[in-house]
Amino acid sequence: MTLCSLNRMEDKIKTFSKFGDTGKGGITRFSLSPEALAARAEFKKRMEAIGANIVTDDIANMYATIPGSEDLPAIMSGSHLDSVRQGGNYDGVLGVMTAMEAAETIVKEKIPHRHPITVVVWTNEEGARFEPAMMSSGVICGKFDKETMLASVAKDKPGYTFGEALAASGYRGDISNRMTPDKYAALVELHIEQGPVLISEGFDIGIVEGVCGMINYEFTFLGQAGHAGTTPMKYRKDALYAAVKTIQYLHDELDKLDGSLVYTTGKISAHPNIHTIIPGEVKFTLDARHQKTEVISQVLEIIQKIPSEVEKCKVSYTQAWSRKSVAYTPRLVDYVEESAKELGYTNRRIYSGPGHDAQYMIDMIPATMIFVPSIDGHSHCELEYTPVEDCLKGANVLLKTLLRIDKD
Amino acid sequence: MTLCSLNRMEDKIKTFSKFGDTGKGGITRFSLSPEALAARAEFKKRMEAIGANIVTDDIANMYATIPGSEDLPAIMSGSHLDSVRQGGNYDGVLGVMTAMEAAETIVKEKIPHRHPITVVVWTNEEGARFEPAMMSSGVICGKFDKETMLASVAKDKPGYTFGEALAASGYRGDISNRMTPDKYAALVELHIEQGPVLISEGFDIGIVEGVCGMINYEFTFLGQAGHAGTTPMKYRKDALYAAVKTIQYLHDELDKLDGSLVYTTGKISAHPNIHTIIPGEVKFTLDARHQKTEVISQVLEIIQKIPSEVEKCKVSYTQAWSRKSVAYTPRLVDYVEESAKELGYTNRRIYSGPGHDAQYMIDMIPATMIFVPSIDGHSHCELEYTPVEDCLKGANVLLKTLLRIDKD
Repeated sequence: MTLCSLNRMEDKIKTFSKFGDTGKGGITRFSLSPEALAARAEFKKRMEAIGANIVTDDIANMYATIPGSEDLPAIMSGSHLDSVRQGGNYDGVLGVMTAMEAAETIVKEKIPHRHPITVVVWTNEEGARFEPAMMSSGVICGKFDKETMLASVAKDKPGYTFGEALAASGYRGDISNRMTPDKYAALVELHIEQGPVLISEGFDIGIVEGVCGMINYEFTFLGQAGHAGTTPMKYRKDALYAAVKTIQYLHDELDKLDGSLVYTTGKISAHPNIHTIIPGEVKFTLDARHQKTEVISQVLEIIQKIPSEVEKCKVSYTQAWSRKSVAYTPRLVDYVEESAKELGYTNRRIYSGPGHDAQYMIDMIPATMIFVPSIDGHSHCELEYTPVEDCLKGANVLLKTLLRIDKD
Repeated sequence: MTLCSLNRMEDKIKTFSKFGDTGKGGITRFSLSPEALAARAEFKKRMEAIGANIVTDDIANMYATIPGSEDLPAIMSGSHLDSVRQGGNYDGVLGVMTAMEAAETIVKEKIPHRHPITVVVWTNEEGARFEPAMMSSGVICGKFDKETMLASVAKDKPGYTFGEALAASGYRGDISNRMTPDKYAALVELHIEQGPVLISEGFDIGIVEGVCGMINYEFTFLGQAGHAGTTPMKYRKDALYAAVKTIQYLHDELDKLDGSLVYTTGKISAHPNIHTIIPGEVKFTLDARHQKTEVISQVLEIIQKIPSEVEKCKVSYTQAWSRKSVAYTPRLVDYVEESAKELGYTNRRIYSGPGHDAQYMIDMIPATMIFVPSIDGHSHCELEYTPVEDCLKGANVLLKTLLRIDKD
């Protein structure tokens, strides 16, 4: 059985980790920054070396294609090269490197394939410098308006737009090169899990069935500020205590729902937030995610049962944002599973909590994802780490999956 | 029965409310600021007009004394003229104005009295510009080191010290003028309640028995930050949920103690405080106050029963500060009560939650306080309000109390 190369995989990881190296085990590589452009140049050089034809579209997405034996739409794989500030060496770039490695293996080992194989680099997935995240896959799939995106201003440089960065990058190409369903047959994106499930449970491969739906709410509790020393308990309208009671209620009720529901109060603020003043106003957030729409509906029902007054404080809430759950193409999901099994790698089906470019692409072409473990579940930080052996297993599953799709 | 004058009381309130007027119903009058110096000048002018002899000590405390018929130590009353930023027209200054009014009534109505009567203005009670609060009474009573206080730097002017402000004020006098037990027989300080008890229960006068003891703790919960979308509930170490559980425990247990205990979590912070990240660290404060040391000890026992680990998060806590409870001189407390009864004013005994200059003075001379109601319990804000009729009742109780002490 022809497999990917450990040495080549290791070389790729070492090389790409240099672009934006923080010196502390991670990278800062904002989209279209000099560091990101250096990574793109490396990508281009390596893909040209295996005979790939490289084009870019109007938002600088890069498509490196090796020909197939028949005149068919290409099968694509890839991810993004940009990172958050002080991010890790695996988020995004591992999806590009494993796709490069799969293509390189196909070329070097002369593995027969009918479809062209395209390795893709999506521009600005993180949205760390120019918001929003998943910007260019979003433009391609009609989620975002292109002109609005071009006007997105750099967080660190007043007035400098994404459009200007794009023009200066040298990677802005023609709109006709965009991914369209007539030119591409399927997409497989490999990514680190960014969570602790695979590593804790000892699995090599996560077979990603879809992306969880989510809701995010902001709650506000209005009480009455007052002096900690002069206000007897019975006269108080303590907004923080009302919030505490409500968080406890949410935990108690949400824990009764499906065990794979995740929910988080990540943000809390009290006003005036002085140790000798009873809080007059408290806000907190609730983020809840599950793959099934009906479970998200149950979460909503629990939220709606919160009384309008808790501990004499007025309660209100608004939905900050939401996302419907996305199911990946079942046939492709099965191919990932069959590939992992064929290779003898332990695996489990899993839903993605975070968003990925592939979740937009599924609206256009069949798509799925492969997860590899993240040590200690670290993500978006310099501690992010996946041993090269685990990366290679991911590359092998990707290779086998691409070849399975090729047989369709 | 000779009483204070409503017209004069009203005139004083109107006049002093001009010094630092915010235009929104309150004042900003930091200690030794131009506004505070204008208030001092007004105080001096009015006290000289009734024949008082005015001296200042080395930290600019002002003593305006009218002679008695015998060579005895003076009976003193007063408070402070400084305010917090956007404070009210009553906190502190009402204690000065009612003392002025009592002295003025004694002079104008030629009420016989054996002791000299001194109206006092303490410098920098609020500590709003130069920390700490109750600075000059603290220096006089040996709570604070004078040199350290002189070096206290203005919060709004880098490098500008309290010592410099003192020198520039024109009110720095001689250390020999400080309040000492040989020169002063007793102190009565009138103050607004700064809480809702008197107003809610319909009492005219609060007979202040003492100042509550208090403790202030800061709790820290250390969990593990993680992505809201990728971390299953069972793997979480959610520091905010651990904090919520602990706040609920504190409420449940502290509510079982004496009903006059007050306790407050006024400050809370979560880190990193992002809606999609499980909080890895949460801190909150607990302030608890009661007049009895044994109740404060019970609070401590409850704190000490918090396990070192809650919801898989490490719990630690430190005592930020504490204050022992202070009991005012029972004889003087009785005089206040007898005076209120004689005047037919409704009254109740009460403990002060906040600190006041008088609580330091009790270490030197017999002392007590009189509270008047605060509408809606407002304090340290522009909404602070006590109707002039209620202020007058306070002045009358103060007058009668001073005359009772005079008979000792």
